[in-house]
Amino acid sequence: MEGELAHIGAGLAAIGSGAAAIGVGNVAGNFLAGALRNPSAAAGQTATLFIGIAFAEALGIFAFLVSLLLMFAV
Amino acid sequence: MEGELAHIGAGLAAIGSGAAAIGVGNVAGNFLAGALRNPSAAAGQTATLFIGIAFAEALGIFAFLVSLLLMFAV
Amino acid sequence: MEGELAHIGAGLAAIGSGAAAIGVGNVAGNFLAGALRNPSAAAGQTATLFIGIAFAEALGIFAFLVSLLLMFAV
Amino acid sequence: MEGELAHIGAGLAAIGSGAAAIGVGNVAGNFLAGALRNPSAAAGQTATLFIGIAFAEALGIFAFLVSLLLMFAV
Amino acid sequence: MEGELAHIGAGLAAIGSGAAAIGVGNVAGNFLAGALRNPSAAAGQTATLFIGIAFAEALGIFAFLVSLLLMFAV
Repeated sequence: MEGELAHIGAGLAAIGSGAAAIGVGNVAGNFLAGALRNPSAAAGQTATLFIGIAFAEALGIFAFLVSLLLMFAV
Repeated sequence: MEGELAHIGAGLAAIGSGAAAIGVGNVAGNFLAGALRNPSAAAGQTATLFIGIAFAEALGIFAFLVSLLLMFAV
Repeated sequence: MEGELAHIGAGLAAIGSGAAAIGVGNVAGNFLAGALRNPSAAAGQTATLFIGIAFAEALGIFAFLVSLLLMFAV
Repeated sequence: MEGELAHIGAGLAAIGSGAAAIGVGNVAGNFLAGALRNPSAAAGQTATLFIGIAFAEALGIFAFLVSLLLMFAV
Repeated sequence: MEGELAHIGAGLAAIGSGAAAIGVGNVAGNFLAGALRNPSAAAGQTATLFIGIAFAEALGIFAFLVSLLLMFAV
């Protein structure tokens, strides 16, 4: 049973990866809601959109990384 | 019991895949809400819609990938 | 006990399938809210509605696929 | 203990069935909110209402199917 | 320990039954919010209210059914 329990941990970590997508969705969704209300201002906020997505996405990728480490490096 | 516990992990990872769909739904739902309020601006934000969906979907596909790895590669 | 623990994993994966329905509901719900506010624009966004549903549904079907694989293929 | 652990999986899958009801509720709830604001447009969106319910309900029925398979077919 | 683990599954399934109540609450809650804003239109949407409740309730009853099956039929 060496390493077997780590595989349960890898699965649990992948839940975190999916949960981070809810955060990414909040960022992009609110950008779209605002951009369609005031389209002329949208271009000026694109950089902020990508900053917001990047920080939320990073946390999901960290969780994905934990999954990979538990499967292959631990 | 070789690989048996990894199957529990695969199931857990699939929860992450489903959770990411909430994020995708937030992006597409907010786009639709805005596009129906201001249809003339919708075409200009289609690229942002697909960027938002892509980042959220990617995290769900990462979780799905963990599922597949736990079932067939670990 | 061959394959027994994989059945717990199959049940866990089905939670992911149900969670994806929340995302699908966000897409369709926001479309309906907007379409009833501005019915004349609804026809022009039907394609986007199905794109949004398709991406969210796909993640739920991935989770369902993991369930089936855990029950019958692993 | 043949099939016993599969019963825990069947119970877990039923959580997915219930979670899908949140998605169905989002679709029907938003339809009702819009239809009571603009009753004359409600008839024209009834088809979209049932499309949205069908896609969300399908994911819940997939989870219920996993429950039944785990109880009686696996 | 015959059938004992199935009782854990029955308890888990009851979580799904409760989760479905959130969906039913979304439907009835949005109906009430709309009906109190526009009482004259409420009578015309009562049928849709019951359709929405029925679909969300069905998924919760499926989860309840899984509970009963796990306790008495499996």
